[in-house]
Amino acid sequence: MRVGVLGTGVVGRSIANKLLELGHQVTMGSRSASGEALGEWLAEAGEGARGGSFAEAAADSELIFNCTAGTASLAALGAAGAENLEGKTLVDVSNPLDFSQGMPPTLAVCNDDSLGEQIQAAFPQARVVKALNTVTSAVMVEPTRVRGDHSIFVCGEDAAAKAQVSALLEAFGWLPDAIVDLGEIGAARGTEMYLPLWLRLYGHFGDADFNISLAR
Amino acid sequence: MRVGVLGTGVVGRSIANKLLELGHQVTMGSRSASGEALGEWLAEAGEGARGGSFAEAAADSELIFNCTAGTASLAALGAAGAENLEGKTLVDVSNPLDFSQGMPPTLAVCNDDSLGEQIQAAFPQARVVKALNTVTSAVMVEPTRVRGDHSIFVCGEDAAAKAQVSALLEAFGWLPDAIVDLGEIGAARGTEMYLPLWLRLYGHFGDADFNISLAR
Repeated sequence: MRVGVLGTGVVGRSIANKLLELGHQVTMGSRSASGEALGEWLAEAGEGARGGSFAEAAADSELIFNCTAGTASLAALGAAGAENLEGKTLVDVSNPLDFSQGMPPTLAVCNDDSLGEQIQAAFPQARVVKALNTVTSAVMVEPTRVRGDHSIFVCGEDAAAKAQVSALLEAFGWLPDAIVDLGEIGAARGTEMYLPLWLRLYGHFGDADFNISLAR
Repeated sequence: MRVGVLGTGVVGRSIANKLLELGHQVTMGSRSASGEALGEWLAEAGEGARGGSFAEAAADSELIFNCTAGTASLAALGAAGAENLEGKTLVDVSNPLDFSQGMPPTLAVCNDDSLGEQIQAAFPQARVVKALNTVTSAVMVEPTRVRGDHSIFVCGEDAAAKAQVSALLEAFGWLPDAIVDLGEIGAARGTEMYLPLWLRLYGHFGDADFNISLAR
């Protein structure tokens, strides 16, 4: 599959590298199509790797990952272009973390709205699936870094898009039973507002190789 | 021990009954010391049960549980009286859920503040410990309703108060390893902002007998 990965940070690179390893063709998009981070990634990435602007990465692809910083995501997707997102599955991995007031970060949007919902509202023709934003990037693409049957959440309006993303998550190593469909995109409030607890747990454990599992 | 339980709802009654079962003396406090809910509870509760106003319940007790609705907690604690909370451990079980805008509820305070922090700030002489607010009332006092080594969080400024609350949680049936100290009271942002995810999981499972466990 031709996949676009928007964002050249650690999340974008982790997902892009995993997709390449799985045999997909990946175009990584960055604000500046000639940026340093993108050049570095291309120099190390193997066959199937391409780079370009946000718009080029989106236009090239059948499915798109938003791995940009949450506070820059709407602008990045605007630069990608609504016409290049239309009808495509858009996996929103971002969190609206706002570090401008110092630590701990606050959420730039929460409570009666979420970034996932804002993205779906801004790009109604995209099939937005919120996923993977509750674990660190290394765990996203290598869930066995954490022991046990820990969980990963998906939500969105489009059942077929969620099924497509769930299949990708299984390819990433997530067990089918670990993938929890929380319903429509409004559930993104839940997974994004989990971040303050995640940050506390990060402080508690001292590293990010953890996750939650659901006990019944 | 003489324990005050503020709030006559299902959370207050669950905790009060468990404390009685454990041999503690419990004074349940309500806004109206002669209210119907309080009368019903007293009629069914056994030895060691008393009822009164918020102030009477607090004055009577060595340790106090705040089980009032989150949006009414500051007023309830104000009615209890700062002088009756002074130097005492105040276990804050409440969540600032605001149902006034319909479902799903929003949080009346979140992101750059929390109800736990507001209570500690309003009553600086109380030793506030946020705890138990991440599970349904039945699970609070009977954690074996959920299988596995699921977790319960405490946070607060006073280490001795947290140790006292942790011991009570163990008496409730929580395993020592299940009790996770998240640090100071600011961590209440994390456990309170988990509620939107909890509500989604409640919808997913169809009942409230669930919890999260930490996977490493």
